[in-house]
Amino acid sequence: MILVVGSVAFDAISTPFGKVDRCIGGSATYFSVAASFFSEVDVVAVVGEDFGEEETAVFKGRKINLDGLQRVSGQKTFFWSGEYGFDLNVAKTRDTQLNVFADFKPQLNDRQRKPDVLFLANIQPELQLDVLNQCERPRLVALDTMNLWINIAKDALTRVFREVDLIVINEAEVRQYTEEANLVKGARQILALGPKTLVVKRGEYGVMMITKDAVFAAPAYPLENVFDPTGAGDTFAGGFLGYLASRRDINDKEMRRAIVFGSVLASFTVEKFSLDRLREITLRDVQERYQDFRALTHFEDHEQ
Amino acid sequence: MILVVGSVAFDAISTPFGKVDRCIGGSATYFSVAASFFSEVDVVAVVGEDFGEEETAVFKGRKINLDGLQRVSGQKTFFWSGEYGFDLNVAKTRDTQLNVFADFKPQLNDRQRKPDVLFLANIQPELQLDVLNQCERPRLVALDTMNLWINIAKDALTRVFREVDLIVINEAEVRQYTEEANLVKGARQILALGPKTLVVKRGEYGVMMITKDAVFAAPAYPLENVFDPTGAGDTFAGGFLGYLASRRDINDKEMRRAIVFGSVLASFTVEKFSLDRLREITLRDVQERYQDFRALTHFEDHEQ
Repeated sequence: MILVVGSVAFDAISTPFGKVDRCIGGSATYFSVAASFFSEVDVVAVVGEDFGEEETAVFKGRKINLDGLQRVSGQKTFFWSGEYGFDLNVAKTRDTQLNVFADFKPQLNDRQRKPDVLFLANIQPELQLDVLNQCERPRLVALDTMNLWINIAKDALTRVFREVDLIVINEAEVRQYTEEANLVKGARQILALGPKTLVVKRGEYGVMMITKDAVFAAPAYPLENVFDPTGAGDTFAGGFLGYLASRRDINDKEMRRAIVFGSVLASFTVEKFSLDRLREITLRDVQERYQDFRALTHFEDHEQ
Repeated sequence: MILVVGSVAFDAISTPFGKVDRCIGGSATYFSVAASFFSEVDVVAVVGEDFGEEETAVFKGRKINLDGLQRVSGQKTFFWSGEYGFDLNVAKTRDTQLNVFADFKPQLNDRQRKPDVLFLANIQPELQLDVLNQCERPRLVALDTMNLWINIAKDALTRVFREVDLIVINEAEVRQYTEEANLVKGARQILALGPKTLVVKRGEYGVMMITKDAVFAAPAYPLENVFDPTGAGDTFAGGFLGYLASRRDINDKEMRRAIVFGSVLASFTVEKFSLDRLREITLRDVQERYQDFRALTHFEDHEQ
C-alpha cells in the first residue's frame, strides 16, 4: 500500500486553449488516481464542505482508500488559480486560498502508519517530517517539494531531504536549492545529504534519474496537443511510485520502467483539463503507450 | 564522401569558466572534424591570410580534403565573438566580422559536384541553393540554418527547405519559422514542405528526430563539466551525417544510431574550448560513450 499525504483542491485554470473556473485538482488527487493503476493507495488530505459526493467520485471505483480524507464542515477546500501562456512549462499563480489546508495536521491511523511506500507530496517540510515520523519505516519514502519551501523553509527542507530515500524535484529547484548551474553536479550535492535517488522533472523535456552509480534519462512523450500541464508532476510521481510499490524488488531496472510508466501517465493527464483524461483511460492504454515509449527512445535492440 | 559548405572562422569566447581571445571555430570546421571519424569529408569554405599552417593543422591527419578551402590574400578570416552566462543554452553574440566571408561564392570542382552526402551548414539560403544546384543529386542532402535567415530571408529559406531531405534545426527556430508553439505540430508543418526528416536540436535536452512515421528522442549526454557549448550543433551534425555516409543503407535504425553518434561527439566538444577536446579523442572513446548512451536511455532490453 502507498500512503500519500498532500492536497485535494479546486483549481481554476487558464491556458491558451481554454479555461475552467472550478475543477478538481490537488497533488494527492493526481497522485492517487495515477498510482491506483498499479497499487492500493491511502490518501491523507483535507477538504471543505464544498467537496461533495460529485467530487469524491474521482477516487471511486479505484483502489483508493479515503479513510484519511478529512472533511471540515463550515469551511472551504484549498483553492489554486493558475495561468499558462504558450510556454506550457511555466505556470503563473493568480491566486492561492489555503482554506482548510491552513490548519491541516494529519493524524495517521494504525493502518496508515504501516505503508509499503510513503509519498510526501508538496506540502510544508515540517508537515512532511511529522507524517514521516508517524510511520513505521516504509520500504521506500519519497517526497516532492517546490520553490516556495526552498525560499522560506530551506533548513526544514534539508532535514526532510536527509530522511528520505528518493526526491522528486524540478530541474529549476535543483539549481535553486544548490546554487549550482550544472544539473548533474547539483544532483550529486543533494544525493550527498542522504537520498539514494533524485528524480529530476524537466517539463516537456522529460525526466532524469540520478543515483550514485547511474543516470537514466527519459524524454516526455511527444504530444501534438498539450492542453493543460496542471498535475503532470504529481501524476508522474503517482505512476512512478505506484508501479514501484507493485514490484517485489526495487532495483535499477524496475526504477527505469517506473520512470517510463510515470511519464506515460503524465502524458495522458496533460491531454485534457483536470483529471478528465486520466479518468477515462484504462491500464491497456497505459501499456500501449509504454510500448510506444520504447520505440521513441531505443536505438539498439540487443547488448553488443 | 561528404561535402560540407560552411564557415571556417576565428572565435573569441567567454564562458563562466574561462575565456579565449582567438581560437579556431566555424561550422565547417566542427562539422568536418566530427564527420571524419566515420567518413571522408570535402570542405568548401574560405579563409583569410591570417589562417596559416598552424590553423590548418586542425584538419590534418584526418580524412579531410581541403581542395575547396580557398585562401584570400590580403584579407582576414571570418570572426565571431560570443559570450555565455550560466545558462549555456544561450550564446550572446558580441561581434561578427564577415571579412572574406562577405564575398564567398563557392565554385565546386568535378569531384565536389558528386558527393554522397551534402551538408549545407548555416550560411545564407541563396548560397545553400547555389551549392545544391551545382551538385549531381547526392544520396542525402541536409541543411542547418539560424534565426537570422528566418528573419531576413524566409522566402529563400523556404525554397531550400523544399529541396533538401533533412533539416537540422534548433527547437526555437522551428517555433519561429512556423509560429506554432507545439514542437511536434511545427515539425510536421516543415515536413509538409518536402523534407523527409527533421532533426531538432534542444541544447542540453538533446535531440528529437521527427519523420512522417516516427519520433525518436535522445537526451544530451549528462556532463558534470560543460565548458564551452560553441560548435556543439555543428559537431552533432558532423557525427550524425558522417556516420550515415558510412552506411550502405540509410534507414530508421541507422538514423537513430547516427543521432546518438552525433550526440556523443557533441558531448566531447563542449568539454573544452574550440576543437581542443575533439582533437584529442579517438574512435574508441566515441564508441565507449556510445555504449554509455545506451545505459543512459534504455529501459527494456528485449521486445516484449
